[in-house]
Amino acid sequence: MRNSTRSAVDPFIVMDVMQAAAKAEAEGQHIIHMEVGQPGTGAPKGAVDALKNAMDEGALGYTVALGLPALRARIARMYGEWYNVDLDPNRVVITSGSSGGFILAFTSLFDTGDRVGIGAPGYPSYRQILKALALTPVDLQTSLENRLQPVPADFADMDLAGLMVASPANPTGTMLDHAAMKALIDACAAQGASFISDEIYHGVEYDQKAVTALEVTDHCYVINSFSKYFSMTGWRVGWMVVPEDHVRVVERIAQNMFICAPHASQVAALAAMDCDDELQANMDVYRANRALMLSGLKEAGFTSFAPPDGAFYVYADVSEHTSDSLSFAAEILEKAQVSVTPGLDFDPQRGATTLRFSYARSTADIAEGLARLKTFMAARTR
Amino acid sequence: MRNSTRSAVDPFIVMDVMQAAAKAEAEGQHIIHMEVGQPGTGAPKGAVDALKNAMDEGALGYTVALGLPALRARIARMYGEWYNVDLDPNRVVITSGSSGGFILAFTSLFDTGDRVGIGAPGYPSYRQILKALALTPVDLQTSLENRLQPVPADFADMDLAGLMVASPANPTGTMLDHAAMKALIDACAAQGASFISDEIYHGVEYDQKAVTALEVTDHCYVINSFSKYFSMTGWRVGWMVVPEDHVRVVERIAQNMFICAPHASQVAALAAMDCDDELQANMDVYRANRALMLSGLKEAGFTSFAPPDGAFYVYADVSEHTSDSLSFAAEILEKAQVSVTPGLDFDPQRGATTLRFSYARSTADIAEGLARLKTFMAARTR
Repeated sequence: MRNSTRSAVDPFIVMDVMQAAAKAEAEGQHIIHMEVGQPGTGAPKGAVDALKNAMDEGALGYTVALGLPALRARIARMYGEWYNVDLDPNRVVITSGSSGGFILAFTSLFDTGDRVGIGAPGYPSYRQILKALALTPVDLQTSLENRLQPVPADFADMDLAGLMVASPANPTGTMLDHAAMKALIDACAAQGASFISDEIYHGVEYDQKAVTALEVTDHCYVINSFSKYFSMTGWRVGWMVVPEDHVRVVERIAQNMFICAPHASQVAALAAMDCDDELQANMDVYRANRALMLSGLKEAGFTSFAPPDGAFYVYADVSEHTSDSLSFAAEILEKAQVSVTPGLDFDPQRGATTLRFSYARSTADIAEGLARLKTFMAARTR
Repeated sequence: MRNSTRSAVDPFIVMDVMQAAAKAEAEGQHIIHMEVGQPGTGAPKGAVDALKNAMDEGALGYTVALGLPALRARIARMYGEWYNVDLDPNRVVITSGSSGGFILAFTSLFDTGDRVGIGAPGYPSYRQILKALALTPVDLQTSLENRLQPVPADFADMDLAGLMVASPANPTGTMLDHAAMKALIDACAAQGASFISDEIYHGVEYDQKAVTALEVTDHCYVINSFSKYFSMTGWRVGWMVVPEDHVRVVERIAQNMFICAPHASQVAALAAMDCDDELQANMDVYRANRALMLSGLKEAGFTSFAPPDGAFYVYADVSEHTSDSLSFAAEILEKAQVSVTPGLDFDPQRGATTLRFSYARSTADIAEGLARLKTFMAARTR
């Protein structure tokens, strides 16, 4: 039995770091985790309680493929509350996390070989899922002056069938404002390229509310999840908003490829949407962590980064310190006992000189991690 | 925005039946559901309790992509208990239901356009997922003399890259014995075709234990799920066993396409594996239902079917009654208030003269449904 060509996806480089960190912990070291991409908090208490009740009340069999009607309606209402967008619940598709949304969107929109633009740096799985589906990821080399987000000029002559953006983005935390989002959407429309907006970090914002693509157009796919703001990573539940005339197509793909998103997770997610107090308390932690990061990283000597508008990452240019981010991350882990992510996962071309620092965990951990980084860098440059 | 060619999957014909049944129920009719493909029971009580405890104890974040080590180990142990097969836990991949297993297996093994044989009749989503991944499903027309399971002669000159079988099968409930399984595996090996065994109905067996492909060879993919015997359909958790040298490839695809199977579902599934008493009580119901079906369907006038070895379906040839199974199912729903599945979903060529009857629900429902069918058929043929 041979493996297919399409199965040759790249390994996550961060996995090597995480394994090294796990090994160090197994040897008794205390590691500060600035490599992880998920909250340290669990699902809100209200979500847990709702699921306990539901489990006592009856069998959690298959839901319909598009998801629990009450959850679809509640999400539609949230678009009114968060963005003042009037959204038809029939356009909301409940997915098995944003991962399920990517598979559904790419399958619904693209045929074998189609070229799909993604910003570099960006979430590595975009590229790998596209490859696994026999599509062609096209890295758009973004620039610091555009805060590492794509602009229309980046894909003017690229013959793209689609463009995928993320705002706030992983790994940079930078956002597209309304004008920047509209420019991209208009450029895609002019080229006949489908527009997909990954909005998984919405809600985890600092100075300004993130803009949803639905404020600009109905002719796009929007992918979101309960993993980040709602703190439910392991539950594998998210949603997608699609144009009205795409609902039936997506429904049929979902029926066959997924049957439904996990029923228990859908029940928990619905309740999580009414847990504002707990979720805002999580945000207070991220806000405090972010303030510590902005000053602490600079004090340590990591001075070249765009302050994140959202999410819980800082993506720093470390070219003055290294030309090999993987070795540098290994050195930081070994000498400072802080685990960070080399940029190569996010940007195969330029990631050798970047690091991603996550501040999703407790404030005490962030403070300790920053102190260690400062000591390490001071010793290194002495 | 256009939809892709690959997104043009066929609708489930049973959905029309289910919508008509739901409409009839909304109008106050009492419908007996013989169309559903899932147990009426929920997750075992021990599974629910384990999840409640886990939710109290900590955040259910991402697991590693291959799944909780304890669950992988417990599944490997089960192969010893059920089949006397010694299985390395490292070969077990936890998946988001068998659906997730299909996506992972097809991606790992096949490239664009590759031809993959599937038995007709068969589970409709095999065909649709293959199409959505730009692969080529090849229907193998099975024969009644082979109890509607494929045999090597069915694909001798088919240039297949792979063969997918199911035992016990949906919709027929027939099984492959060791010799039949080995013949298929040997024929695939001789042709260089990958062999995939869907074993989702294992555990739901009547006179004989189902044979796993792993009793014959390690060079195959085995897909299974907690949905049927373990009664956890909506939880979207299953597993796949792959050859040792395929684990890393599947792991990378899973990391990118799924991140992990739902953590909560994995916790519940692990506990479900120690709930034999409750699960065997479910089996007692299926066993009683099956006995009722075998006599009751014949009394009603549905005489042409193979007695099912496993699963909870009877697949009947109704060519003496109709040449249009969809209209016939609609007539049965309207006049007998029994909802059944026309064969067209399972066999596009020959399904116009077949019906699938499910007996997954309560024995009282089955008895009532059979009585209605008898009355209906008596009136129809009078």
